Amino acid sequence: MLTTINALKQPTRWEWVVQALANLDTILLDHSHCERKAAGVAINLMFRYPSNTKLVRMLTAIAREELEHFELVNQWLERRGIPLGPLPAPPYGATLNSEIRRDEPMRLLDTLLVCGLIEARSHERLGLLADACPDRELAQFYRGLMASEARHFGIYWILADTYFDRETVMQRLEELAIVESNVLATLHPQPRIHS
Amino acid sequence: MLTTINALKQPTRWEWVVQALANLDTILLDHSHCERKAAGVAINLMFRYPSNTKLVRMLTAIAREELEHFELVNQWLERRGIPLGPLPAPPYGATLNSEIRRDEPMRLLDTLLVCGLIEARSHERLGLLADACPDRELAQFYRGLMASEARHFGIYWILADTYFDRETVMQRLEELAIVESNVLATLHPQPRIHS
Ligand SMILES: [Fe+2]
Ligand SMILES: [Fe+2]
Ligand SMILES: [Fe+2]
Ligand SMILES: [Fe+2]
Repeated sequence: MLTTINALKQPTRWEWVVQALANLDTILLDHSHCERKAAGVAINLMFRYPSNTKLVRMLTAIAREELEHFELVNQWLERRGIPLGPLPAPPYGATLNSEIRRDEPMRLLDTLLVCGLIEARSHERLGLLADACPDRELAQFYRGLMASEARHFGIYWILADTYFDRETVMQRLEELAIVESNVLATLHPQPRIHS
Repeated sequence: MLTTINALKQPTRWEWVVQALANLDTILLDHSHCERKAAGVAINLMFRYPSNTKLVRMLTAIAREELEHFELVNQWLERRGIPLGPLPAPPYGATLNSEIRRDEPMRLLDTLLVCGLIEARSHERLGLLADACPDRELAQFYRGLMASEARHFGIYWILADTYFDRETVMQRLEELAIVESNVLATLHPQPRIHS
């Protein structure tokens, strides 16, 4: 999954891993929110572009998988006795969303690329957790999700490549990837998947 | 599934079946939108009540099933060469949503019961299509979905019964069921699942 890693401008630094491992329960709860949000975003996109058959078909598959992940993370929460509940989101999502241009067709392009970058980062960070997590069963769980998130990045990339020419996609991905890495350059004090 | 039928104040009249069978392609396209909306509503509810574990667990299951239905209906659309696309919604959903009170906890109660009634009506109407549809394979498809929609009514009812006392639930269900049947008393001129 070289493409995934290549999309990200900067790798996650070790301090995030330290923060995450010291706050695994919070990371698990935040992860649950991430999976539900990922499903919601995919469904909203289908709602906004109901005539784009390829988009609808591919995002239905993503939404179904994210809901499955949501269910799996929630089983981990239950197992560890962590109650479900709200959790303030880190600035990551809002910052990336503010980069999405309002007018079509740029809105579609930006949305697909932002979604793709989030998937690529999730892939990277779940991989770091899989490597570093001392609970071997939980580490294996993270390892299992990684492949899906890389595939999701691929789907968003394919969709962007379907509706826009390659050069436009690559150029905009480059710009957004810089923003994405910049948000994460300063560790957010609250432990999150995207802190 | 007596409870389902019992929740509805008035059965669907024959003129809806006639309208639906004369416009099966439109009904299939509208059905696709209904399934996607059903998934979206379940996810939005989880988003609004993230601490209600039972609600989150049960609605995750519903959302997953609705996405599966969405995929299946879309396969029928493809098979019949019906392109995906937007379709103006009938007044049904907006009228029912306007009955949802704004303050909690009534908002939760009303939302659960409105969702339940929509599921109950879908169950009834898919059953009518299953009986009347001349395409035997399509009829069988409708028959297959019926059971899920009845189960979904049951889940919304159980959730209402979990968070509210039985008498409050029954009384409000009665009121909302009257509104639900009233909207459908006049056939909407555009053929829809809920016309
Ligand atoms: Fe996921
Ligand atoms: Fe994903
Ligand atoms: Fe359904
Ligand atoms: Fe349903």
